[in-house]
Amino acid sequence: MRRCAVALVHYPVLDGQGAVVTSAVTNLDVHDLARTARTYGMSDYFVVHPIAAQRELVERIRQHWTDGSSGRRIPDRREALTLLRVVDSLDAALGSLGGRGEAEIWVTAARELGTPLSFAGARARLKGDGKAVLVVFGTGWGLAPSVIDAADAILEPIRPTRGEYNHLSVRSACAIAMDRLFGARPA
Amino acid sequence: MRRCAVALVHYPVLDGQGAVVTSAVTNLDVHDLARTARTYGMSDYFVVHPIAAQRELVERIRQHWTDGSSGRRIPDRREALTLLRVVDSLDAALGSLGGRGEAEIWVTAARELGTPLSFAGARARLKGDGKAVLVVFGTGWGLAPSVIDAADAILEPIRPTRGEYNHLSVRSACAIAMDRLFGARPA
Repeated sequence: MRRCAVALVHYPVLDGQGAVVTSAVTNLDVHDLARTARTYGMSDYFVVHPIAAQRELVERIRQHWTDGSSGRRIPDRREALTLLRVVDSLDAALGSLGGRGEAEIWVTAARELGTPLSFAGARARLKGDGKAVLVVFGTGWGLAPSVIDAADAILEPIRPTRGEYNHLSVRSACAIAMDRLFGARPA
Repeated sequence: MRRCAVALVHYPVLDGQGAVVTSAVTNLDVHDLARTARTYGMSDYFVVHPIAAQRELVERIRQHWTDGSSGRRIPDRREALTLLRVVDSLDAALGSLGGRGEAEIWVTAARELGTPLSFAGARARLKGDGKAVLVVFGTGWGLAPSVIDAADAILEPIRPTRGEYNHLSVRSACAIAMDRLFGARPA
């Protein structure tokens, strides 16, 4: 099985008007995605933020839940946070995985963008040998076009099967994507 | 397809020591599960809390995102919150669905409890005609035994496929369960 990691990007992402912005870190994103990443066997969970003060905030959250009293109180959260890597860019995340030549970027989006890689196709690719895969999620209204354009693959969107509403939170979308890629298939 | 709704229970649930407690409402639970419920075609999203002040908090969150400025700014959240019903007990939620004789309770848990209903079996049951189904999630460390014992079915746990760690957040677990029950099946 190929090595797989998750990244949560805060810049460049889109706002509700389609402008490219930087979003702020959400505390529960740090915890939820770490727990999801740990459950599905990710090697790393990168929180990507260009602003030093925001990276420091994430580091403080990590310290509180690993070294501090809360880590003793709820060891499950501490265990998940051992996957957390706080970096200033996607390039830095890729550097951890061996660099651009050693890892593929698969992006996610709520809508169809270019030729998608189906989850079935993605599962097949992950089973074999090959470069590490970094699955990238965006905050705000999603990853900016520059990130999508630089990707090796665009995972198909999680389409609603009952109606048109398709606005899952990134916490939910990451959990569903991980389960579709790595979860037990129904009999 | 049978009518299906989701409930998030704050009492009776377990704490980290296995005691039966009441947990506090988490703001992102109100939003994330509403968005997940809307995406997967749920008829209702019940937030169940025995404490009036906590129910009022949830109502204030709802009002802010439906009638207030934030509702205009982010209509997708407002649309999801139209499913939200704030009730004081699971019985009250069932009452909305026609009462105990008209609806089944399916509970969820992180561990194996009794004979589980597989997700495949659950999908099959939902396709036919029949009573409404209320899928119940617990906060804290999960639903108390009294809720499990009163259930018509216990959904199989979401098992990790790579390792032993199995501590998804309730936001993630709900999203995954909904996708396994109602999401498009991979080709």
